[in-house]
Amino acid sequence: MYAIAVKDSHLHWCEHNDLPSPGGSEILIDVAWAGMNRADVLQRDGGYPPPKGASEILGLEVSGVVASIGPAVERFRVGDQVCALLAGGGYAEQVLVNEAQALRIPQGMTLRDAAALPEVFATAWLNLFMEADLREGERVLLHAGASGVGTAAIQLCRAFNNPCFVTVGSQDKIEACQSLGADGGWNRHDGSFVEAVQNWGGVDVVLDPVAGEYIEWNQQVLNLDGRIILIGFMGGRETSVDLARMLMKRQRLIGSTLRSRSPAGKGSVMDALYAHVWPLLENGRIKPLIDRTFSIQEADEAMRYLEENTSTGKVLMGVSGA
Amino acid sequence: MYAIAVKDSHLHWCEHNDLPSPGGSEILIDVAWAGMNRADVLQRDGGYPPPKGASEILGLEVSGVVASIGPAVERFRVGDQVCALLAGGGYAEQVLVNEAQALRIPQGMTLRDAAALPEVFATAWLNLFMEADLREGERVLLHAGASGVGTAAIQLCRAFNNPCFVTVGSQDKIEACQSLGADGGWNRHDGSFVEAVQNWGGVDVVLDPVAGEYIEWNQQVLNLDGRIILIGFMGGRETSVDLARMLMKRQRLIGSTLRSRSPAGKGSVMDALYAHVWPLLENGRIKPLIDRTFSIQEADEAMRYLEENTSTGKVLMGVSGA
Repeated sequence: MYAIAVKDSHLHWCEHNDLPSPGGSEILIDVAWAGMNRADVLQRDGGYPPPKGASEILGLEVSGVVASIGPAVERFRVGDQVCALLAGGGYAEQVLVNEAQALRIPQGMTLRDAAALPEVFATAWLNLFMEADLREGERVLLHAGASGVGTAAIQLCRAFNNPCFVTVGSQDKIEACQSLGADGGWNRHDGSFVEAVQNWGGVDVVLDPVAGEYIEWNQQVLNLDGRIILIGFMGGRETSVDLARMLMKRQRLIGSTLRSRSPAGKGSVMDALYAHVWPLLENGRIKPLIDRTFSIQEADEAMRYLEENTSTGKVLMGVSGA
Repeated sequence: MYAIAVKDSHLHWCEHNDLPSPGGSEILIDVAWAGMNRADVLQRDGGYPPPKGASEILGLEVSGVVASIGPAVERFRVGDQVCALLAGGGYAEQVLVNEAQALRIPQGMTLRDAAALPEVFATAWLNLFMEADLREGERVLLHAGASGVGTAAIQLCRAFNNPCFVTVGSQDKIEACQSLGADGGWNRHDGSFVEAVQNWGGVDVVLDPVAGEYIEWNQQVLNLDGRIILIGFMGGRETSVDLARMLMKRQRLIGSTLRSRSPAGKGSVMDALYAHVWPLLENGRIKPLIDRTFSIQEADEAMRYLEENTSTGKVLMGVSGA
């Protein structure tokens, strides 16, 4: 099969060994579309090796058609249209994945749109509703609100009655986020968000891919029993924490990552999406937000585009052209 | 009534206004014994003011006899022997408290021994089993293992099948902790505990009243999905946290405090103690550990003794002499 290889920090579409037949609970998917994520950029640059046993090929989510199934597969048949959350291997014509990590695409949705779902909605759901245990009416602060995860999180907050405030990198992005349902926004180039969020009324949960000095600022805008969910550290690996505030306000700092979870761990997130989010996608209350599509042959250009930080929503690559 | 007043950082037993009659769900307790806690030392020194609406008198736990009850009280009658978790007011002949914060003393236990229960068992239960959500077989690191909370936590760990390791300030204390059920121990005067705990096999939960540099060391001995429960910051209010490790290992740093919780919040901890710990106290599998008793007139001397850090288990003061 063909797949993406990394050579001198560039992405090349070239021949690759065929995959083995699916064993046990695995399914083999003919990839239609592959979603691109910031984690792929890190992996290209050598900073985010795949978990043990996972494919060395980039790519954490795809949509496509089931081409064959392992002997223990229960949920899928050959020909089913699915999307899947991967530990790697998505930038390729085919990918093998445990059936627990795949879902039938929502009714009425195209394979293209469905490729934009797994990573962002699994990340947003896992962190807001499982890790932070977000309750109805609780208030949320989303950093990088216009990212794929951010735009998914805004829509989930709106659908589940959680007011949310975003921080982003431009006035245009504030408006894009507000059109999706954000109640307020702040341009990070205007300095600390602390006063703006305090004036908005404070928050119960922060979804934070930035970390660094944001941690202390997050602590300052957090209500009693507030939770900071740390999903990245673009702002620095080390930070200072105010332990007295953490104790007296009963705050929680929760480190979270999706990729290294077991198939069963990823599966429990996918099951929750199927139960709670798929119906909202099927009735149109939530939409995957797609910024731009490329062909897989243009993967290198697509990744440079993602790195510019100007996108709002997902960057996708067409593989089979379906 | 008589109660303790703080004058020039000393504790004096002297006359105090009588308390009002109990209203609503309050009960008035004739205090038999009062437990002493490190929080009382902080409050004496001006560093830990009582929560809004709470008594200005020191004292976070007592045992005694119900002297009168408010019109909405459902659980207690005059004459019941109880122990209670307070927001303040325990160093006195009488104290008023919401009935949710009181429990009948365990069958077969004296009022003296029951005064040693509320703070340490509520703190240990809340933090290990509610905040950290400790599961059977998970491994625990207890800093200040010979303290009142530490000795309660060791016994809970033993009773609920959780191996535990303690850090303490002397070899004698290691032995005292092991006799209560600790599986291993480390004298903090011998330097970092990291290697010792790693050699023991790492831990899933850390109960930490120290903080400061201990936070980074805790991170190093914590397994995947590990939790650090922060209940004090004797080692410093600010610390550096390794966010990359926190994220990749899915670690949680949880700030926790008991005193500022509402009567209902304290009540839910007391209810859990009644359901899970009272039976173990009644059948003798768990015992309150009492280091030394003083009379309330010796409160000043008792507190200086507590500050010496040589005690293992609780320091109590007799009030009515019951």
